[in-house]
Amino acid sequence: MYYVGIDLGGTGIKAGLVDENGKILCKVGCPTLVERGPRPIVDDMARLVLEAAEKGGVHMDEVKAVGIGLPGIQDPRTGHVPFCTNLYWHEVPVIEWMRETIDKPIFIGNDATVAGLAESVAGVSAGIKNSVFITLGTGVGGGIVLDGKVYSGAHGVGSELGHMITVVDGEPCTCGNRGCWERYASATALIRMGRQAVKERPDSLILRLAEGDEEKITAKTVIDAAKAGDEAACKVFDTYVYHLCVGLVGIINFIDPEVIVLGGGVSHAGAFLLDAVRAKLPSMVFYKTMPYARVELATLGNDAGIIGAAMLGR
Amino acid sequence: MYYVGIDLGGTGIKAGLVDENGKILCKVGCPTLVERGPRPIVDDMARLVLEAAEKGGVHMDEVKAVGIGLPGIQDPRTGHVPFCTNLYWHEVPVIEWMRETIDKPIFIGNDATVAGLAESVAGVSAGIKNSVFITLGTGVGGGIVLDGKVYSGAHGVGSELGHMITVVDGEPCTCGNRGCWERYASATALIRMGRQAVKERPDSLILRLAEGDEEKITAKTVIDAAKAGDEAACKVFDTYVYHLCVGLVGIINFIDPEVIVLGGGVSHAGAFLLDAVRAKLPSMVFYKTMPYARVELATLGNDAGIIGAAMLGR
Repeated sequence: MYYVGIDLGGTGIKAGLVDENGKILCKVGCPTLVERGPRPIVDDMARLVLEAAEKGGVHMDEVKAVGIGLPGIQDPRTGHVPFCTNLYWHEVPVIEWMRETIDKPIFIGNDATVAGLAESVAGVSAGIKNSVFITLGTGVGGGIVLDGKVYSGAHGVGSELGHMITVVDGEPCTCGNRGCWERYASATALIRMGRQAVKERPDSLILRLAEGDEEKITAKTVIDAAKAGDEAACKVFDTYVYHLCVGLVGIINFIDPEVIVLGGGVSHAGAFLLDAVRAKLPSMVFYKTMPYARVELATLGNDAGIIGAAMLGR
Repeated sequence: MYYVGIDLGGTGIKAGLVDENGKILCKVGCPTLVERGPRPIVDDMARLVLEAAEKGGVHMDEVKAVGIGLPGIQDPRTGHVPFCTNLYWHEVPVIEWMRETIDKPIFIGNDATVAGLAESVAGVSAGIKNSVFITLGTGVGGGIVLDGKVYSGAHGVGSELGHMITVVDGEPCTCGNRGCWERYASATALIRMGRQAVKERPDSLILRLAEGDEEKITAKTVIDAAKAGDEAACKVFDTYVYHLCVGLVGIINFIDPEVIVLGGGVSHAGAFLLDAVRAKLPSMVFYKTMPYARVELATLGNDAGIIGAAMLGR
């Protein structure tokens, strides 16, 4: 049997035909065009399901289920999607609308959650029963896999790991609180800290890599400057790694997964990031002589969304 | 069938014969006498199992399993107890030693974890599948029940909720980090904040309730003064509730349980605490319009240790 996974983002809708093992057989897609509202977007998702099956040369009878990963959550009471970040959705009956065209079981998951599921099926945490996936992007997202299954909590509002507060009364967060972990562990945080750093150290390589323009500082600029040994950049990077580890230690002390997978933009720093995190954690975990979660880098990249969404129905 | 639950603490060992529904039929006990080392303590635990069955008028054939709740953890690799707070244990083969006398399945759980299990079997969260129990005592302990079963993590080091960092670079913690939640949400924190408060406000009722002696300030003194409307005490209590909620929000945003149960010394503040927490949380949770965990007070008190330990074997 086959599955279709849909990765709905603010820019594009991607869909793929996926086999039992999480392997993508073919991909299709179209732009999201957020401004047109939810109904035509959902219609396009339904259309892409059929398109993916056709392109893959598979009859719809051979498609067991359809999964959708999106930047929001599903309300388990109604089945609706009450929110979708950057899509301005409110209580959208995605499954009902999809069902008008697609007569298959349809599942919905948060985008970070399905990416974590994808890694646990076909990526770095393949075969691992308990894992936590972290996306280090514009924000910090989380995906929890327990006993091989996605865990979204009793009310569907769990795994919002970026909104654990780690710096009480710290930086204001979009959620209304101050000091959420994502204000310190996201790519956005790295950029903010990089911009602050060059105010004090305009001679920093960070600014040169950004062509002398503070506004052009990205997470990559800061990391590349740190890799090159630039003092100001290294200081920013160390601070970032410390804050990242503060949250990771919370995750370890809380749910003690087998593996923590780091994904999202900042994870492209690769071994430079991973080695720094692995060096920092041992002194910070609670039980110093007991084994704890391995930290790994995500391996599926942009395909994780399609694969994980597809695997929701497995 | 019956179960024997053992509650091992730094002061006393309590054991009880418990039925299938988590009801204690009889209790026995003896002092721990930490200084004598682990072997005689474990021997006493074995003796108390037999004593509990005898006192309850139950033949050991009718005892299905024995459970032990202790202020430490079990290493799932060895079955040993690698640590026990205040008991100075190191890699104690509790089950092996117990088995010399007791030919029953023997289970070990962390004291906060078994208290949480007890509440989920016979207390305020009875019948609830996913709950988190928090002890607000000298430290802050956590017990996680998922799908009706105790969750201690992949390496047995999870549910140490007091050691999520909520105040980066804050108060030093016994674990080696700074700013752990328990430094701000424990009875100890309330005492520390109360003592600080009376330095600035020696006219505070806190100090009068402590007979003018800073050293006599307890969590109860601070709470009683706040209940009476004392300004300095109310300020301390508000700060305490804020910090408590900071961690609770992390728990909600992370694992989204059905119920969060507050136990331990500070929970004796009762409705005064519960109402304050319930009033504060709605503005702090991530999904403001979605339902989230009910917060409740523990109801089993000191019996939770025996009941929960017994229920480990159910």
